[in-house]
Amino acid sequence: MNPLQQRILNDGVVKSAAALDASAFLTKQIDPQLLNWCANAIADHYRDHQLDKVITIESGGIAIGILTALALDLPLVVCKKAKSTLDNGALYTESVKSFTKNTEYTLSCDKNHISRGERLLFVDDFLAYGQAILGMNSVCQQAGAELVGLGIVIEKSFQQGRALAEQQGFEILSLARLKSLEHGIEFV
Amino acid sequence: MNPLQQRILNDGVVKSAAALDASAFLTKQIDPQLLNWCANAIADHYRDHQLDKVITIESGGIAIGILTALALDLPLVVCKKAKSTLDNGALYTESVKSFTKNTEYTLSCDKNHISRGERLLFVDDFLAYGQAILGMNSVCQQAGAELVGLGIVIEKSFQQGRALAEQQGFEILSLARLKSLEHGIEFV
Repeated sequence: MNPLQQRILNDGVVKSAAALDASAFLTKQIDPQLLNWCANAIADHYRDHQLDKVITIESGGIAIGILTALALDLPLVVCKKAKSTLDNGALYTESVKSFTKNTEYTLSCDKNHISRGERLLFVDDFLAYGQAILGMNSVCQQAGAELVGLGIVIEKSFQQGRALAEQQGFEILSLARLKSLEHGIEFV
Repeated sequence: MNPLQQRILNDGVVKSAAALDASAFLTKQIDPQLLNWCANAIADHYRDHQLDKVITIESGGIAIGILTALALDLPLVVCKKAKSTLDNGALYTESVKSFTKNTEYTLSCDKNHISRGERLLFVDDFLAYGQAILGMNSVCQQAGAELVGLGIVIEKSFQQGRALAEQQGFEILSLARLKSLEHGIEFV
């Protein structure tokens, strides 16, 4: 059992058969040493993949994203869920459905920040239904860049995200894979 | 001139007399080495202030927040601008007006994550009109915690945020203070 799995058992709260509340150490309150362990595990896995940038989505992916980018000494590109007042229209965009939050949002990425031929690592806090991966892949394809792999903190393996990402041919590293929340926390 | 100021001169784009676009290195694309320099500068300044936690607001403050929290080996508390589906009502909240974005939002913090008597450092990417500081101070006061100081990456010194924070008695460390954007970028 790794330090993240141990912490999930200690401080994760099962809210339903589909929802784990990790707010004590990962989302609303973050243990930086634990998250830095996660970032270094992702960086170590992908260090030889000839990456150009790390890419993530606000706001859940930013903390693990910046620590992973620091460990790999690569820029972090932050895709937005809402347009800012400084946007000039030069954006790659894709509509993304969030089944977890039952909302839809427009993923956007500044065209200046990903370029043709770049190799990108998508890092995020949770993998659930995998819709964000499809959106991110579309944004990368619009830029002519390549999404090489995924670095995920917690994967809900009982939802369809991993299968969907594997269908797309992406390499996936998930540091904790939840097999089920039906009878407490079970890992794969 | 420090590395942040140098980078602002090189890659910051003046969008108007009131707006600096730092999206190439601080917001939409982040240089992790530069931001880690910022985080360590903030951490070094506040290391002896007997802090209990670092606190920030999604999503702009998260990257500098997690790096500062890591440097200080303290938890990072992330205040939200919108309620999540996991919220149980146990929140401290305060309404905050954003003059920069011409919007209003509800700042919220889980009651489990700040406690009576705790000493908190508020870290954020920009200081402009200072409204977020008032909201954060209200949240801290509701919890019986104390906002001890501010760690800011870029301060727009021609707007009222610093004066407002000083009136409240907060210590402020801003790593780059913009005196004016009227005739290009001028630092204090």
